[in-house]
Amino acid sequence: MISTDIIFYQMFEQESSTYTYLIADPITLEAALIDTVFEKVDRDLKLVNELGVKLKYILDTHIHADHITGAGELRKKTGAQNAVSAAAKVNCADILLTHGQELSLGKLKIKALATPGHTDSCMSFLFEGRVFTGDALLIRGSGRTDFQQGSSETLFGSVREQLFSLPDTTCVYPAHDYQGHTMSTIKLEKQYNPRLGLQKNKSDFVEIMANLKLAQPKKINEAVPANMACGLI
Amino acid sequence: MISTDIIFYQMFEQESSTYTYLIADPITLEAALIDTVFEKVDRDLKLVNELGVKLKYILDTHIHADHITGAGELRKKTGAQNAVSAAAKVNCADILLTHGQELSLGKLKIKALATPGHTDSCMSFLFEGRVFTGDALLIRGSGRTDFQQGSSETLFGSVREQLFSLPDTTCVYPAHDYQGHTMSTIKLEKQYNPRLGLQKNKSDFVEIMANLKLAQPKKINEAVPANMACGLI
Repeated sequence: MISTDIIFYQMFEQESSTYTYLIADPITLEAALIDTVFEKVDRDLKLVNELGVKLKYILDTHIHADHITGAGELRKKTGAQNAVSAAAKVNCADILLTHGQELSLGKLKIKALATPGHTDSCMSFLFEGRVFTGDALLIRGSGRTDFQQGSSETLFGSVREQLFSLPDTTCVYPAHDYQGHTMSTIKLEKQYNPRLGLQKNKSDFVEIMANLKLAQPKKINEAVPANMACGLI
Repeated sequence: MISTDIIFYQMFEQESSTYTYLIADPITLEAALIDTVFEKVDRDLKLVNELGVKLKYILDTHIHADHITGAGELRKKTGAQNAVSAAAKVNCADILLTHGQELSLGKLKIKALATPGHTDSCMSFLFEGRVFTGDALLIRGSGRTDFQQGSSETLFGSVREQLFSLPDTTCVYPAHDYQGHTMSTIKLEKQYNPRLGLQKNKSDFVEIMANLKLAQPKKINEAVPANMACGLI
């Protein structure tokens, strides 16, 4: 079951179908934003101010290829620290996260879980019964694995070992959804994810991913270099 | 604080920006859908089946002008009962709701609150710390009041008396959002709703609504008659 003893908001950016999340400790009001979008920095700051929370961390689950992070801009405007996986090899981040590392919001902990495969530096963030899965595990889907050091084999292992080992009731909040879903659970994804559900094995997944024939993200040539600089464009 | 001792899902339909909600009692697995969309009946049935819940009620907050309800189709396919305000004067509904009426999901109660003003038959549904406000109270906004027996004066009274009297921590889930917000709270809307917040009075609201100059909803001539027949088109 999810905890309601936290402050939690989900917001959607329509151009890239990106979910941004605000989480906070209701006692100290320390807050974090997860997967911000450059064009939506003002929206996020407005919510931070309206809720009266103190932004402590700006987290990115990975180096996004489809939108530019708001992390650099938010850091400039708030003094919060931004964090991304150490494996992303960026020079701009305040905190370079390693697997299992914890960040505190009051007495509550955000735990970073390395879940590479969509990119080599994807992290999921576990917080009070919710897991923010970035592009590793999507609702009834997964991130693609055909660029940015993606690997279907690696992604399969990440999801099965790091995410599907969480309690079934853990709520799943991805970085994107294109079908109007807002959340899932580990139990539902184990049962019904058509790529990664328990009825599939690694070779099924590798074959599915090899045959997706997706177009390049429109903004990849702009977004990846910008995100390597924490969105300071 | 919201209760997590319920099953709760929020889904989004992009053409009309409609949120559909599934709520259920985790003990008996009795479930209700709120504000379904005709084109999304299969999506909703799929979720019902995946969660293993038993659909008992299909609720509409009002006679929608922007999309056709899925209620009639869902009723045919599941045997669930559909419900709408008695004030809507439809002949097709199984349950005609009056203010204060309660519907049961196991031991839990959905309470219908008459919140007219967007239309003359709008109802909000209160369930375990969440209120589903239809088009009465939107996130930082409100439904329009210029057709379907709408009345700005009536809507102002509904929101102030029925919704803003709920506990501040009550989570607000509207039928629509056009800005990427997914939820709010009574406290936030009291403070920051630019039309209905506590800093505004009734004449402010009436003036704001009189000057919106909105175009007619594209589907109104099709949707209203269809919804008067519970979406059985």
